[in-house]
Amino acid sequence: MTIKNSRRNFLQKITVSALALPLLPSYTPENLYTEPYQGSALRVAIMGLGSYGTRVAEAMQSSKMAKLTGVISGTPSKIKEWQGKYKIAEKNCYNYENFDQIKNNPDIDAVYIITPNALHHPQTLRVAKAGKHVICEKPMAINAQQGKEMVDACKKANVHLLVGYRMHFEPKTLEIIRMRKEGELGKVLFFQGLSGFTIGDPSQWRLNKQLSGGGAMMDIGIYSINGARYMLGEEPIWVTAQETKTDRAKFKEGVDETIQFQLGFPSGAMASCLSTYTMNNLDRFFLNGYKGFAELQPATGYGPILGRTHKGELTQPHITHQTLQMDEMAAIILQGKKPVVPVDGAEGVKDLSIIDAIYQAVKTGKKIDLKV
Amino acid sequence: MTIKNSRRNFLQKITVSALALPLLPSYTPENLYTEPYQGSALRVAIMGLGSYGTRVAEAMQSSKMAKLTGVISGTPSKIKEWQGKYKIAEKNCYNYENFDQIKNNPDIDAVYIITPNALHHPQTLRVAKAGKHVICEKPMAINAQQGKEMVDACKKANVHLLVGYRMHFEPKTLEIIRMRKEGELGKVLFFQGLSGFTIGDPSQWRLNKQLSGGGAMMDIGIYSINGARYMLGEEPIWVTAQETKTDRAKFKEGVDETIQFQLGFPSGAMASCLSTYTMNNLDRFFLNGYKGFAELQPATGYGPILGRTHKGELTQPHITHQTLQMDEMAAIILQGKKPVVPVDGAEGVKDLSIIDAIYQAVKTGKKIDLKV
Repeated sequence: MTIKNSRRNFLQKITVSALALPLLPSYTPENLYTEPYQGSALRVAIMGLGSYGTRVAEAMQSSKMAKLTGVISGTPSKIKEWQGKYKIAEKNCYNYENFDQIKNNPDIDAVYIITPNALHHPQTLRVAKAGKHVICEKPMAINAQQGKEMVDACKKANVHLLVGYRMHFEPKTLEIIRMRKEGELGKVLFFQGLSGFTIGDPSQWRLNKQLSGGGAMMDIGIYSINGARYMLGEEPIWVTAQETKTDRAKFKEGVDETIQFQLGFPSGAMASCLSTYTMNNLDRFFLNGYKGFAELQPATGYGPILGRTHKGELTQPHITHQTLQMDEMAAIILQGKKPVVPVDGAEGVKDLSIIDAIYQAVKTGKKIDLKV
Repeated sequence: MTIKNSRRNFLQKITVSALALPLLPSYTPENLYTEPYQGSALRVAIMGLGSYGTRVAEAMQSSKMAKLTGVISGTPSKIKEWQGKYKIAEKNCYNYENFDQIKNNPDIDAVYIITPNALHHPQTLRVAKAGKHVICEKPMAINAQQGKEMVDACKKANVHLLVGYRMHFEPKTLEIIRMRKEGELGKVLFFQGLSGFTIGDPSQWRLNKQLSGGGAMMDIGIYSINGARYMLGEEPIWVTAQETKTDRAKFKEGVDETIQFQLGFPSGAMASCLSTYTMNNLDRFFLNGYKGFAELQPATGYGPILGRTHKGELTQPHITHQTLQMDEMAAIILQGKKPVVPVDGAEGVKDLSIIDAIYQAVKTGKKIDLKV
């Protein structure tokens, strides 16, 4: 540690203690996982013990402010396995029939819903009714109307509703947002997002319209939608979109394989994006301004994000995204922390409104105006 | 030179002499500028002595099969300057009033028209009528109808009509086309083209609709149109497009500043492209297939092209584009060489048909079907 850093840390501690704030970790790359945290943790139950649920559970083992204390699953054998692996008390285990009883469980503060997209809406309403905070995986629902109902239900129940956006906390992503905000890129008029991968097993729920609510757009295209918004720092006013489908057996009616879409913004900026389930090598964000550019590639994958700008490579450290996400979400719920980019239900509804418009643009072949 | 290379060169020479072919340079990177050429050169007059005309003249000094022998200009002082610099005989100098007399000049085989876009059509008709081959800078005209008339006129006059496409001969570009053709990228479903730069002086002819016929699309967007076609190896069947304009003083009615456009192809492939006069850092082609990808960045600039694929960096040598272009065009005209990607008038008309459709798509907001 350099003298300068020591002094800054010292000054930070002085300030915090002087203002008698809760002992809140400051999420700067230097101290995130070196400073101790002695406050209470957010106690989380995970609903849906699939592969992404497992990834979140593993990542949470390194979180300082969030702790896995419960599970909700329809598969008793999975519950047993998780109980053993993560030391989860029997009384904190629920299934899809009885999880409303979580209401009476003082060891669980929040439920992280990691189930198929179409289930998010009814499950969120039930968790809210049980008086627990909701963290809901993205897409928060399968259309904006459902999303709004979820926001209303959580507001009424006086619980937080957060959407599982990982990238909003990722250090290289935040550095580019900072550069754009501080004018280091100049006026920014173009964002390009490529989001896609080749999806495997055709029998998975992600390719079942009843459960997924759509196709690649719901699952992976949403990263480019969300990225366009936080990278440009504006809300789009129109959208156009074009679909192609090369495999109608795998991608049935209502399950999109490949969609290109374009967004127009009030400043005159445009976004050009691709969402696909049929190609790999597609995970790139590119932001172009009068004074410079920024590129992330990979931009949203689970591993380290790589980035560069006109000034050179970005060197912010990699922190497991879900570890950081859960710590930040705990700080939002427990301490009222305001994230740089919102991750609340309203943010999720904005993405869903755009997805609704993209599907409408594909169907009608027309430019769709968005209500801001 | 390795033994293997020597042997290959030796075998090539044997084959050529055995078949009694004309002494035709084989444009492989190994021997392009090391083998001697003893045949006759294509004698070219340049029409339009502006900055790009100067660039072509300089590059031609290194060409082996093309030779600058004449000039056509409305500015006597420029003619004097070029005569001195390039040793051009007085009798090979023309102005815009008298250049039809080139018909009687046995020292000029072809005229390279490097004038404002809107002049290409009438000037091509006059050169064809004078019985000389035409090389016309891109865009070959300001709409497809003009382009077709130029093709017809040159056909009737029995002269070649070539369009000044540089990239069709560029070694890294050709390597990617080879990889795609030979299946090394697998099925290719996506092309992305970024073509743009920040244009300076607002009084230049490129921003005058009467002379340019349009804006960025005519000048720089055409690279992405053309690139989409030669990279994917298909002709598009539909186009959609969206325009934004941030500076209506600089980019007047009919002069496009920024247009995004999308092309759909029979295979299900799509192209996503940007054409702009208002941002730098935009010169990138990206081709994505099931088995791999290819990227060129810069993709079309005058300097060395940089490229990489899933197999690594491309290492083909840089040759000044216009030097290579003029040698290849001379081989096409003098020896009937067939280029990998066509550069004839029909190729130019295809790009103009797409530009016509892009402008129509912007105007109507509709997907425009293209006749193949």
